[in-house]
Amino acid sequence: MMKIAFAGSQIDRSDHIRSDPAALEGLMNWRARLLRLDGLDPVISPESTLEWGTLADADPASELVFLGVADERGCFAEVQTKLQGSVSPAGPRVWAAMAALSPEDLATYGGARSLVDWHARHRFCARCGAATTLAKGGWQRSCGGCGAEHFPRVDPVTIMLVEHDGRLLLGRQPRFPPRRFSALAGFVEPGESIEEAVAREVLEEAGVKVGPVSYVVSQPWPFPSSLMIGCYAQALDDQLTIDTTELEEADWFTAEEVAAAMAGDEDGRFIAPPPHAIAHHLLQWWLDR
Amino acid sequence: MMKIAFAGSQIDRSDHIRSDPAALEGLMNWRARLLRLDGLDPVISPESTLEWGTLADADPASELVFLGVADERGCFAEVQTKLQGSVSPAGPRVWAAMAALSPEDLATYGGARSLVDWHARHRFCARCGAATTLAKGGWQRSCGGCGAEHFPRVDPVTIMLVEHDGRLLLGRQPRFPPRRFSALAGFVEPGESIEEAVAREVLEEAGVKVGPVSYVVSQPWPFPSSLMIGCYAQALDDQLTIDTTELEEADWFTAEEVAAAMAGDEDGRFIAPPPHAIAHHLLQWWLDR
Repeated sequence: MMKIAFAGSQIDRSDHIRSDPAALEGLMNWRARLLRLDGLDPVISPESTLEWGTLADADPASELVFLGVADERGCFAEVQTKLQGSVSPAGPRVWAAMAALSPEDLATYGGARSLVDWHARHRFCARCGAATTLAKGGWQRSCGGCGAEHFPRVDPVTIMLVEHDGRLLLGRQPRFPPRRFSALAGFVEPGESIEEAVAREVLEEAGVKVGPVSYVVSQPWPFPSSLMIGCYAQALDDQLTIDTTELEEADWFTAEEVAAAMAGDEDGRFIAPPPHAIAHHLLQWWLDR
Repeated sequence: MMKIAFAGSQIDRSDHIRSDPAALEGLMNWRARLLRLDGLDPVISPESTLEWGTLADADPASELVFLGVADERGCFAEVQTKLQGSVSPAGPRVWAAMAALSPEDLATYGGARSLVDWHARHRFCARCGAATTLAKGGWQRSCGGCGAEHFPRVDPVTIMLVEHDGRLLLGRQPRFPPRRFSALAGFVEPGESIEEAVAREVLEEAGVKVGPVSYVVSQPWPFPSSLMIGCYAQALDDQLTIDTTELEEADWFTAEEVAAAMAGDEDGRFIAPPPHAIAHHLLQWWLDR
């Protein structure tokens, strides 16, 4: 299995420091590094690395989150006041960063982005409506009203390759670029296992029942905070009933068609998901088997 | 693999109905079933099944969540006003229900509990602080202030068997009953894969590095909304450095010791996790290999 994008950060999360105010304060010295962000976008150096400043670069009105420790230096990121209460979808600068950054830097950026974005979008207590404040180096927000503690959210999503008689089921969402097909996917809901979520999504979106589900690989996907859980299952039959509110189109693709798309053949039957998507890895895994 | 507790509900989630107000309204008729809950606790019939009433039993001040369809009847649960804004940890009546209910009923209860509890603890918009209202049959809350949409939360947790030279690493949390040991576990954080979360937790809690991580099985755990992701890894050495803020004790256990605990031997070296816990399944899976 090749490297999965957004995994592999070399920053040590140093969980024990988060709840030790003296240790955290001790790391916030002149050697500490501040990840440079423009809002939620990364700032990339001419050498195609993440740019870091020092804590002196931070706006005093910003909240600071503790990313962890690298080379014995505390690493932090800033929740700028302009972000607070706002929603920032990923744009072209993020797609460019994906192509430019090393896997380790991309993973560091992704984790920081998810955490900063969570603080941006979680300013108030969902339980009582009072304002919350950052705690434990940004790994918690505490309510000044009812005392509730809130933690950064991670949303598990299943994404699955479904095979029938040597062909793979792939679908097109209306928002995809022309001719792009990818694996079906959907959020895991309260009250279901990963395996149940996979079976439900395939049945809902394509009308197909599957046999046993197996796990392949996972990926953190920071838009804003998904945990992609890549799975594989065989369909019990190939008769599709497509939910057109979710998918524009879905169909079965042969190994030759998948191999052509993965090789970048633009004249093939479809265009493959991009290299940073877990779906790309799943398709490569399937071809390699 | 035996059946995992809290998975296997026979209610069809009927996702397409949630966003179709007319279809949802059509299901809210005299045949619709209302899951009887006492706060978040289940109400169990003399036949050890979940008790259901009709929508006429609901307090008009309650919010109603749509669980799905069974036998062509809409299934609902009530977010009672006394729950709204409150936190309800699981108590003895829940532990009794786990022993009494069929796997299907337990899964239905668990999913309903998670969803109702989420509504109880999420009354306000985390982004702007305004009050939110239930939408899409309870699978969303919408903000009356900024228009943000909020979705029920599912928190992925890794739980792992770590093996070295035929022995398993198990630990004791301070809150465990006497002599109980179980698998190490911890929440997946933003910016890490399942595999990275497993390696980090084992290193943090026990000071041990692991090799490749493999997935075993998953379980929804509705206290309040965890997705337990059961994994396996081999430790690179057996030298433990225990984080005593997380664990009271941790050690290596032989297959004979694990088998004795799983057989219910109270004079053995430790007491196994209870049958409804995914850790119990993981230990059985390991013994069966």
